Amino acid sequence: VGDDAAVLEVNPGFELIACCDLSVEGVHFRREWAPPRLIGHKALAVTLSDVAAMGALARFAMVSMALPKSTSAQFIDELLAGMFELAEAWQVSIVGGDTSVSPGPLIIDTSVIGECEKGLALKRGGARPGDTIYVTGSLGASALGLQLLNSGITIDAGATETAGEAAQPPQVEAILRHLKPEPRLDAGRAIAQARVATAMIDISDGLSTDLSHIVEESGCGAVIQASSVPIAGCVTALASSGFDVVPLDVALHGGEEYELLFTAPPEAAARIADRFRSLSLQCTAIGEVIERPGLHLASEGGLEPMRPLGFEHLI
Amino acid sequence: VGDDAAVLEVNPGFELIACCDLSVEGVHFRREWAPPRLIGHKALAVTLSDVAAMGALARFAMVSMALPKSTSAQFIDELLAGMFELAEAWQVSIVGGDTSVSPGPLIIDTSVIGECEKGLALKRGGARPGDTIYVTGSLGASALGLQLLNSGITIDAGATETAGEAAQPPQVEAILRHLKPEPRLDAGRAIAQARVATAMIDISDGLSTDLSHIVEESGCGAVIQASSVPIAGCVTALASSGFDVVPLDVALHGGEEYELLFTAPPEAAARIADRFRSLSLQCTAIGEVIERPGLHLASEGGLEPMRPLGFEHLI
Repeated sequence: VGDDAAVLEVNPGFELIACCDLSVEGVHFRREWAPPRLIGHKALAVTLSDVAAMGALARFAMVSMALPKSTSAQFIDELLAGMFELAEAWQVSIVGGDTSVSPGPLIIDTSVIGECEKGLALKRGGARPGDTIYVTGSLGASALGLQLLNSGITIDAGATETAGEAAQPPQVEAILRHLKPEPRLDAGRAIAQARVATAMIDISDGLSTDLSHIVEESGCGAVIQASSVPIAGCVTALASSGFDVVPLDVALHGGEEYELLFTAPPEAAARIADRFRSLSLQCTAIGEVIERPGLHLASEGGLEPMRPLGFEHLI
Repeated sequence: VGDDAAVLEVNPGFELIACCDLSVEGVHFRREWAPPRLIGHKALAVTLSDVAAMGALARFAMVSMALPKSTSAQFIDELLAGMFELAEAWQVSIVGGDTSVSPGPLIIDTSVIGECEKGLALKRGGARPGDTIYVTGSLGASALGLQLLNSGITIDAGATETAGEAAQPPQVEAILRHLKPEPRLDAGRAIAQARVATAMIDISDGLSTDLSHIVEESGCGAVIQASSVPIAGCVTALASSGFDVVPLDVALHGGEEYELLFTAPPEAAARIADRFRSLSLQCTAIGEVIERPGLHLASEGGLEPMRPLGFEHLI
């Protein structure tokens, strides 16, 4: 990266997708909670997740970092290693960036350029009454992980190396889901290429808040079936062992999940199930788009309004 | 900007150009020195200048801002107004961004996506012995402006509205050249489209340092003719009125000029002069690329080595 800017080749017939995300020390992460490798991983993962939510292929990334003077070279190397590892896993080229000293916190801004076949990119505003609402993966673990970190529980560096493996105790699993989110790029592409979805978003602010973005921009409403919401195993495990958490609440309102939330007409159900079988990723129908504006939760007790309880950052 | 990412159309036959630049309070700017409108202007201008240095057309921009809690809505509006005004002047669409609270300084990261006809983008590494070295505009004013600001001289908000007009006292002109640089996008395009330049860079770190980037990446050296270096009028005016500044030094080593420095074979001289006549922008031949590595300064006293005295930021 010697030049003022990078020269990039894009594929003909594709549109560009561009997005960026800030990660601010003390707001989005704490150094006491995560090794630098995971800080780097997450700073890029959250922006890749935005590309995934459009159904696009991530191609290029740029990374700007404002670094406190006290930051060690080893810390920076590890942070970049975490970023490059994730970039490589998704064949994303880090093509440039900028660094500066910071008189305050460590701040990372990642910009990602992706591409999508013309007309195929999925937006928030296309949901129609009658559409089924789907979510990938399972929910609640990231917010619970943050709650655990806030209560003083930490994990050792060794655990972070084995992220994703099933044999972790539920606390460790929840914390890792918070610290090391995986962008759903494969799922996003599969959904876009199936050409059945009408709207898509990633769950960065919590299911209720991000669903409210879809229904507001689509001019409609939604009913979520409480019993269908996929709750992460570590959340139910910790709840049943007496930990102070209401699984459904944290699944509906917990932020930073980075799962995909999308809508598609009911006749696409088999096709969607097919696509996800080959991805070996869970995809669950959790409700329906309705004409009447607003969010509603259907449970044994009947239908009640659901408020979007937006995700709050550390400060 | 409702969606997770922006969808962008690019022209067929063009390559993408991507770059980003951080502006950190206390490092790149001070709020005491510049109204928010100029802080916004400059944060975008420095990144547009990188696109100009490639000879590309700037198309899209993203803006990430980490804002101290105390930042007023009016301050942010003014900052964005300065940015949008510059973007509009160059037909650049601001297509996205991110904002966060900052527990420290105000930090702005601007990313710009440009495009250039395939194969036409100019890099640093193409200069060849015998090439003439050119620079646009005149030099030294920005560094002198910074020196004035550092010595406690400020300008009133009214002066910032009339930036670029000639009738300013030399102090005000120098400070405005520092606070409100204009990206040389037109000149960059003209140079690339003339298909004669072999290397190009923008002078963000000072002529000597940026020229050293060109010669190092091109595997050659350079001789600069001291008497040919275009020194800004306000610099000579202040020097002759007794202000402590050596015009040639500040022109050779002062940073943040955002003029373009490029190389082209001697036979292209008439063509280059032609292009710049229609731009009504000064373009001066200041030296020659030579085989022998290193930078040299030729003056009445003979030929002496010139060290690249890199630009230093506020901290």
